[in-house]
Amino acid sequence: MGTGPIRTALKVDFSKSAQEQPYFHARFNSLMAFDGITPGEVAKVECVDCSGGWIRNDDYADDARDCDLTQPHYLSGPFEIEGADPGDVLAVETQDVQPFEDRPWGFTAVFDRNNGGGFLDDHYPQAAKAIWNFEGIFCSSRHIPHVRFPGLIHPGVMGCAPSAQVLVEWNRRESELVAMNTLDRVVTLLPEPRNVHAGSAPDDLRAIIGRDGARTIPGRPEHGGNCDIKNLGRGSRTYLPVHVPGANFSISFCGAIEMAGIITLKFELMKGGVQELDMKSPIFTPGPVEPHFGPGRMLTFEGFSVDEAGRQHFMDATVSYKQTCLRAIEYLKRFGCSGEQIYLLLSCVPVQGHVAGIVDIPNACTTMGIPMDIFDFDISPGAPIPNLDMGSCAYTSDRR
Amino acid sequence: MGTGPIRTALKVDFSKSAQEQPYFHARFNSLMAFDGITPGEVAKVECVDCSGGWIRNDDYADDARDCDLTQPHYLSGPFEIEGADPGDVLAVETQDVQPFEDRPWGFTAVFDRNNGGGFLDDHYPQAAKAIWNFEGIFCSSRHIPHVRFPGLIHPGVMGCAPSAQVLVEWNRRESELVAMNTLDRVVTLLPEPRNVHAGSAPDDLRAIIGRDGARTIPGRPEHGGNCDIKNLGRGSRTYLPVHVPGANFSISFCGAIEMAGIITLKFELMKGGVQELDMKSPIFTPGPVEPHFGPGRMLTFEGFSVDEAGRQHFMDATVSYKQTCLRAIEYLKRFGCSGEQIYLLLSCVPVQGHVAGIVDIPNACTTMGIPMDIFDFDISPGAPIPNLDMGSCAYTSDRR
Amino acid sequence: MGTGPIRTALKVDFSKSAQEQPYFHARFNSLMAFDGITPGEVAKVECVDCSGGWIRNDDYADDARDCDLTQPHYLSGPFEIEGADPGDVLAVETQDVQPFEDRPWGFTAVFDRNNGGGFLDDHYPQAAKAIWNFEGIFCSSRHIPHVRFPGLIHPGVMGCAPSAQVLVEWNRRESELVAMNTLDRVVTLLPEPRNVHAGSAPDDLRAIIGRDGARTIPGRPEHGGNCDIKNLGRGSRTYLPVHVPGANFSISFCGAIEMAGIITLKFELMKGGVQELDMKSPIFTPGPVEPHFGPGRMLTFEGFSVDEAGRQHFMDATVSYKQTCLRAIEYLKRFGCSGEQIYLLLSCVPVQGHVAGIVDIPNACTTMGIPMDIFDFDISPGAPIPNLDMGSCAYTSDRR
Amino acid sequence: MGTGPIRTALKVDFSKSAQEQPYFHARFNSLMAFDGITPGEVAKVECVDCSGGWIRNDDYADDARDCDLTQPHYLSGPFEIEGADPGDVLAVETQDVQPFEDRPWGFTAVFDRNNGGGFLDDHYPQAAKAIWNFEGIFCSSRHIPHVRFPGLIHPGVMGCAPSAQVLVEWNRRESELVAMNTLDRVVTLLPEPRNVHAGSAPDDLRAIIGRDGARTIPGRPEHGGNCDIKNLGRGSRTYLPVHVPGANFSISFCGAIEMAGIITLKFELMKGGVQELDMKSPIFTPGPVEPHFGPGRMLTFEGFSVDEAGRQHFMDATVSYKQTCLRAIEYLKRFGCSGEQIYLLLSCVPVQGHVAGIVDIPNACTTMGIPMDIFDFDISPGAPIPNLDMGSCAYTSDRR
Repeated sequence: MGTGPIRTALKVDFSKSAQEQPYFHARFNSLMAFDGITPGEVAKVECVDCSGGWIRNDDYADDARDCDLTQPHYLSGPFEIEGADPGDVLAVETQDVQPFEDRPWGFTAVFDRNNGGGFLDDHYPQAAKAIWNFEGIFCSSRHIPHVRFPGLIHPGVMGCAPSAQVLVEWNRRESELVAMNTLDRVVTLLPEPRNVHAGSAPDDLRAIIGRDGARTIPGRPEHGGNCDIKNLGRGSRTYLPVHVPGANFSISFCGAIEMAGIITLKFELMKGGVQELDMKSPIFTPGPVEPHFGPGRMLTFEGFSVDEAGRQHFMDATVSYKQTCLRAIEYLKRFGCSGEQIYLLLSCVPVQGHVAGIVDIPNACTTMGIPMDIFDFDISPGAPIPNLDMGSCAYTSDRR
Repeated sequence: MGTGPIRTALKVDFSKSAQEQPYFHARFNSLMAFDGITPGEVAKVECVDCSGGWIRNDDYADDARDCDLTQPHYLSGPFEIEGADPGDVLAVETQDVQPFEDRPWGFTAVFDRNNGGGFLDDHYPQAAKAIWNFEGIFCSSRHIPHVRFPGLIHPGVMGCAPSAQVLVEWNRRESELVAMNTLDRVVTLLPEPRNVHAGSAPDDLRAIIGRDGARTIPGRPEHGGNCDIKNLGRGSRTYLPVHVPGANFSISFCGAIEMAGIITLKFELMKGGVQELDMKSPIFTPGPVEPHFGPGRMLTFEGFSVDEAGRQHFMDATVSYKQTCLRAIEYLKRFGCSGEQIYLLLSCVPVQGHVAGIVDIPNACTTMGIPMDIFDFDISPGAPIPNLDMGSCAYTSDRR
Repeated sequence: MGTGPIRTALKVDFSKSAQEQPYFHARFNSLMAFDGITPGEVAKVECVDCSGGWIRNDDYADDARDCDLTQPHYLSGPFEIEGADPGDVLAVETQDVQPFEDRPWGFTAVFDRNNGGGFLDDHYPQAAKAIWNFEGIFCSSRHIPHVRFPGLIHPGVMGCAPSAQVLVEWNRRESELVAMNTLDRVVTLLPEPRNVHAGSAPDDLRAIIGRDGARTIPGRPEHGGNCDIKNLGRGSRTYLPVHVPGANFSISFCGAIEMAGIITLKFELMKGGVQELDMKSPIFTPGPVEPHFGPGRMLTFEGFSVDEAGRQHFMDATVSYKQTCLRAIEYLKRFGCSGEQIYLLLSCVPVQGHVAGIVDIPNACTTMGIPMDIFDFDISPGAPIPNLDMGSCAYTSDRR
Repeated sequence: MGTGPIRTALKVDFSKSAQEQPYFHARFNSLMAFDGITPGEVAKVECVDCSGGWIRNDDYADDARDCDLTQPHYLSGPFEIEGADPGDVLAVETQDVQPFEDRPWGFTAVFDRNNGGGFLDDHYPQAAKAIWNFEGIFCSSRHIPHVRFPGLIHPGVMGCAPSAQVLVEWNRRESELVAMNTLDRVVTLLPEPRNVHAGSAPDDLRAIIGRDGARTIPGRPEHGGNCDIKNLGRGSRTYLPVHVPGANFSISFCGAIEMAGIITLKFELMKGGVQELDMKSPIFTPGPVEPHFGPGRMLTFEGFSVDEAGRQHFMDATVSYKQTCLRAIEYLKRFGCSGEQIYLLLSCVPVQGHVAGIVDIPNACTTMGIPMDIFDFDISPGAPIPNLDMGSCAYTSDRR
């Protein structure tokens, strides 16, 4: 009769550093799990942002510049799911996502090109940051004034642990990429024995995990992981392949706006689901509740696979999407924003990034729709440009 | 007082071949224009599909296999816009798009890898075809049973003519791509003197156009063109840069489902708009009317930049989106469809192809959401697989 | 193989008056039907507006004032559906609705309180009119400037013919209402032998129809009829109870904007559906395509069951909704519109009229949401009031 | 720098009864206020359900039957808004609404016809109840199995205090209704000196409030109050007229699902707003985030103003909406639900209750759309009826 409160399967201890807390880990591996979840169960899981608290609510981006990237992401878990076997599918329903009541803020950061970097780091090589205040479902930032939007809070990282074989495969193909790399940049993050956070694993196990465990930076087809999919918010249901007994499910908040918070999850098991669904990568259904602006209120930019130097690429959607982003930035700069402000903005507001076509040789075409109603002034083409103080995002203290 | 019917600025003559009709053309160029549009005017423009009628409403894909690709696309126009100058922006509102009342059908085709090819031609190298019947706003196909959807009818190609300088740039960079190509395939279509359709241009002009005019196959950043953007349907407003006096606007139907039809357009001019909007590529706002399934009714597939052979690519959204498509095809094959049927389907139903992230090295992540309600059976994970006859799409008559 | 054009089951002849055309009728009755539809068939049906052409595209409302209300509505049909029997359900899918290409306009009218009247006729007793021009999917009016919206075109009247018994019941209960009426106004329109349009029925049958046939003004629970439901547009599917052999389905355009046009319908039959669905009144599913403004773009007014004189009514949703409308009119008048302009506007734009609650004695509460984006200026509370010329709607030539 | 947690302006003490807590009150009046809010401030307010905890999470409806209706609703507040004067408009943004973390349930109840009653109490005269468990954004009930939906959590009651003059007017018109009542039922709740909860007011003030204060049951045009508008959820902004110095804003949770919870509100003041907006009743804009099912997924029922006995009413939207509800209930009963279960369901799921038309004499037409996707089986017409155990809602222990 009745129902009690939902169990909190993992509680964050804000009096300790993330590195000290045994319920986090920062390397995907098959060797550790600490908690039992019964299929059918609903549980709350507390999470931290990817930096584990390194990024501060201040007006400098020094913390983003200096972030020690051997450490993140701090993942909550892994959780053992009772009865889960390799070949099963774990269906995870995200029933709710909330910030901590007493920590109503998060951040978006651009990393330094020499320490992490990012999609547009050849244009914006230096660290920048914006702090977002949560006002209920809305977010606003002192670093990007005249903008407010209903936040898309979603777990950026979610997945079951890789098996030993899967880990071997990941390391093989990512090492190969490094071996063949001709770009003047870091192209992947291989296993990193320094600063390994392996939960409560003893030292010997931690050493093995440091040697073989996968970095949490990229998402990977076999398990999902860090795929930053904005539709994985409230009400979504994600189907994840299971690779190890117990599934060993982990999760972190680093989607859209990075923050600490609480996620309510329901876990269900489809025995033999991988074969039944012919599943090679996760699939999902988004939730029925989402911000809704009306299609006619999106201002949409186009990009093609011709790069900034005028070089023609063959069907390259990455080049194309980069151009799309640059078009949006150029347009919004007219209103007095800096490029960094817009870059930070595009990474967290509910934009619609679409693949329009990868059909007509040699140009892929992508688009990005920005909801015009997140601005408190009219950004539509033809509207007069108001004389607004757009302030400044956070830069490093030594900015040249 | 009152208002008469809307002027039809261009009428198709179905008693002649597309090649014979002077109001079409098939090479973008700066040299020809035939009709005067006044800014502020609303006009109807009749269009044909890209093949100009080559593709037949039958049950074989021989026509798709044998299509002479020196000919398409047949564009309606170009239309001279009174008072348009280089540096202006032409705002084109798509007020309506309709098939011809007595031609209530269209098609989707996969081309042969040796004659045109397409995004997945290494998996589906042979020609295939589906004919879609229009039932008001709905489409259904005898070639893909148990599917019905509200059609997204939109012009696949729309743009203003390139100037001579723009043409030089296009030819430079696309020739360079050919010169540096190491792939075993055609990577771009350079100017093609054979089968030039240059409207009513006299022979000498036609020869020049054949030598220099741009092929209509890819969209290009400077003018949009063939960008296949599904949101450019009813009610959308597209802002196009003007490169030549009179703008010389052209349009064709080859988006989603190819068909002949009538588009109602309103033309407006923003003098000096290119500089004012800092515009390098077209932008647009979609219309307020569109098919609407509810976010929770999308089944969404994920893909990452690891290719079919297990090779890791660096942040390659094209590889990633190809994987996303393959995941959708594998899933839907479980219900008895062939790969070609699904490939044809994905190219015309209102799927949501998203760029989830090009952030976390080395894996780009893309997704594709398929509206589950276009099927007359339940495709959700966990639903039982019904025993349905999924028929067959059209293949070539000599199919092995 | 293939598919030809969709059959047009009824063609309007604009060279004749509606009264002369045998394919219209204006009294619901069980006695006549003229055309055979096969279940499963898709057919186009041409329709006229309810006045059959009486209302003119001009700038006076004299025609609205002087309209002979013994005549309308002119219904297309009735169509005999092969094999339909009483107790079946006729499922009608509205696949498309289009105005005639050469008649791209419609109207909204307020009738004189002494000739028809309307919901707010104690506030707006005199005839008024607005002509709407169609620009593809958009409507705008010289009589209500600064407004433009994607038109909701839908059949205002749709239903199967009543049986003789159903007619007896209708006449009984509506006569009873007249007998008990204490209001100083016409409360219902009983059968009217004058100006009967009974299709091609011979004189004797026409006399019977005039004596017993039901007027088309109200919708009625047993068959639907004139229910003006805006969601019955493109893509909707309506389930109608069948009362006579052959169903005798009729339809007219008088929803939202009155106009002549073409509707594409698919007819299907559910044998024994009335009992199976326990159906006393029609049900329907709206279509998947509709104008879409985003919930946050609606400005919503509240009304309660306290009338203009301050009298408290008990749970009266009609009084409440009238107050809701008056609140919207008062608000919009601030921008320089006349009450009549707004009254005309509210009757055709895609407003959301909601029953919020008929729960808390004694006040029913209703709301009306107006999409703010149909105005080309900002109507939100707090926005400055621009100095715009809002013109005038059409009034009668002798307006005092 | 930075931002602390949002202030909680009112905390509920669950160790005491609602009657004992000084921060609640249950009569609208002009005499009391306890807390200062600064315009521009964001604050959390804790609320209880209307019964203040009387309704239990059990499987009997005895509590609903026996509820002492002299007591509710328990309103949180009133809050004094600094600087608010009569004639101002208080703009209240609902930034978030959440249940208490440790009370993840709420209820929907039908009252006994002899103690409160409700809209359909001549059909369902006895008390019934359903308990809803919250699973993140979803609700489900052991009393109505096979149903789950994203909860519409909204404050059912919200408004500023009436002035003494407004109170006089309310009492005048509601007394008049009682005086003229010919129905065999309670038609309004006049001031009630018994069981007055007047916050921390001293006894003499409490006596006056009991004598003159307005009951909280109905919403009223002058201030809104209990209007149960489902769109007043997350992200909505409501504009409320101010009648007394300090505004004296109150709020309670009794919308859709009754529950205890926390609402985050932002308060802003428009000086002189009543005259500027010509405001007689509150207006609002809904939030941009809401459950979203797609228009084609609504199953919609129609009703007309002909009552169950076959009597014709003149344009009576209340009769019409009652018929609409009965049609929905009849339809859903086919699946094995009891009438009470469906009645409870319709009062809390996100149905769309529309006024289709109050135009065509004598029949008003209303509709109700039910989102089909809240059921875990297919309720569409024509779908087979599955053999499901639909359980039972809570009835009284002595049910006949």
